Amino acid sequence: MSAFDLKAWMQWHLDRVEAALSDGIQAHSAAGLGEAMRYAVLDGGKRLRPLLVLASAQAVGHEPNGVAALNAACAIELIHAYSLVHDDMPCMDNDVLRRGKPTVHVQFGQAQALLAGDALQTLAFEMLTPQDDSVAPAIQASCVALLARASGYQGMAGGQAIDLASVGLRLNEAQLRQMHRLKTGALLLCSVQMGVACVPQVSAGVQNALARFGESLGLAFQVVDDVLDVTADSATLGKTAGKDEAADKPTYVALMGLEAAKAYADALAADAMQALEDTGLSDDRLAALRGLAVMVVQRNN
Amino acid sequence: MSAFDLKAWMQWHLDRVEAALSDGIQAHSAAGLGEAMRYAVLDGGKRLRPLLVLASAQAVGHEPNGVAALNAACAIELIHAYSLVHDDMPCMDNDVLRRGKPTVHVQFGQAQALLAGDALQTLAFEMLTPQDDSVAPAIQASCVALLARASGYQGMAGGQAIDLASVGLRLNEAQLRQMHRLKTGALLLCSVQMGVACVPQVSAGVQNALARFGESLGLAFQVVDDVLDVTADSATLGKTAGKDEAADKPTYVALMGLEAAKAYADALAADAMQALEDTGLSDDRLAALRGLAVMVVQRNN
Repeated sequence: MSAFDLKAWMQWHLDRVEAALSDGIQAHSAAGLGEAMRYAVLDGGKRLRPLLVLASAQAVGHEPNGVAALNAACAIELIHAYSLVHDDMPCMDNDVLRRGKPTVHVQFGQAQALLAGDALQTLAFEMLTPQDDSVAPAIQASCVALLARASGYQGMAGGQAIDLASVGLRLNEAQLRQMHRLKTGALLLCSVQMGVACVPQVSAGVQNALARFGESLGLAFQVVDDVLDVTADSATLGKTAGKDEAADKPTYVALMGLEAAKAYADALAADAMQALEDTGLSDDRLAALRGLAVMVVQRNN
Repeated sequence: MSAFDLKAWMQWHLDRVEAALSDGIQAHSAAGLGEAMRYAVLDGGKRLRPLLVLASAQAVGHEPNGVAALNAACAIELIHAYSLVHDDMPCMDNDVLRRGKPTVHVQFGQAQALLAGDALQTLAFEMLTPQDDSVAPAIQASCVALLARASGYQGMAGGQAIDLASVGLRLNEAQLRQMHRLKTGALLLCSVQMGVACVPQVSAGVQNALARFGESLGLAFQVVDDVLDVTADSATLGKTAGKDEAADKPTYVALMGLEAAKAYADALAADAMQALEDTGLSDDRLAALRGLAVMVVQRNN
């Protein structure tokens, strides 16, 4: 572990992801639509989901510069980006600040934001199905199957619908966990699963342990998000702080209090680390996943 | 040809498509999202795109009850349905009537309509990637690649962006054709291409001729749409008549006049029929495609 440089690993992969995303969206196409899409997805965000894809792929032996995992990394970031564009719109959260910039509908108008979100989702599935021989069709099909199920009405979109319907309600912990399992957890778990799917014939034991890692980390991520919503300021977050509280949304902090929520995030991170142990994979293979897990819990934005 | 009963062929396939779509969307899921999705897609529309998928698959020898083409048929209808839900929203066309019913945002609110559209798009890619052995991975990957490219920013969504940017402008015929090639033509062509992709190893000659058929039919469809917008009433159309004219949108009727537009639709239909001839396939194989092509041009809604 000591020899592993997470920062360098991240930078190398982030540069590849950024270049691939930029290559995937022609700026001057379709009456400004390409420009709005680029604005929504380039130069912003922590890229946690793509990094999880790449670290998971590496854990199961994917080549560091392999195309399958790079495509999957871009695809999940595109899904994440589309969900933010639509989530920020006036009929949803009506937010004006995202990643430190005006939101897409503020910058380009609502109609263009709606279309840009739609087209970012579509582009995710384009990137998973390159029209050359670079990725085996079975891997392409597996990644599409995973990503579509994680982001659709029984995944992320379903979680958003539950979230919308829950404003002002008192959810219990089971209900809150179910909402987050869908709204943010499904994509984080999918990041891990797509990384694994980039390599054929990974054992069921490793697959299951990595899935447990993805589930625990996904929930930890959301609990930390709720904590940061009350403890950080908007400038650090790059988005409007305190908005969950202001909107009377159910959160872990509202449910269990600030200190208990922090302790819960730590416990979930420990579960995630244990799941990595249980894979039986080498420290070399697991180094990037371990580093990302620590980062998720210790982040301040 | 004389023995072919288009109406019976359509009804048999439409029943299968309707059942598969209904099976694909659980009504009671995710805080009403499933209900909104079902409202948007079930019991409505002409289902032209799914029928084109199924007729094209049949032309190249797919089993009439094959799963690959049924999945592709459902998937393209889901993409079409999502585009209508979003297109009807207040920030886009702001339409209140669709398929003779209140539009989704009128019935369920804008936030749910936005999410329902998003999730209908995702579901299209779920349906193309069944998680059993019913469809070869290579066919799954091909269909996803075709559908994503046809519906994204270089296809349907791009056409919608051009459409939005063109209101009040005078487009020339080349510009108008390019807009429609993307906005409606891309999905109609894709219907034909996905049907063909459901069968391995179709000759390039047949593929190209069927693609020409899809392109000509797609443009004919749009010209007829423009004609109907001025000649039909809202009750017959099931949507608001005259809205293109009212919105000062560029149309073939505005560009070339009503009679010339009708003649142009007929000429395009003749091109489409010629392309079918050029496949060299048997009359039995082509009967459904021929029937659908006639229907597209002679429809009154």
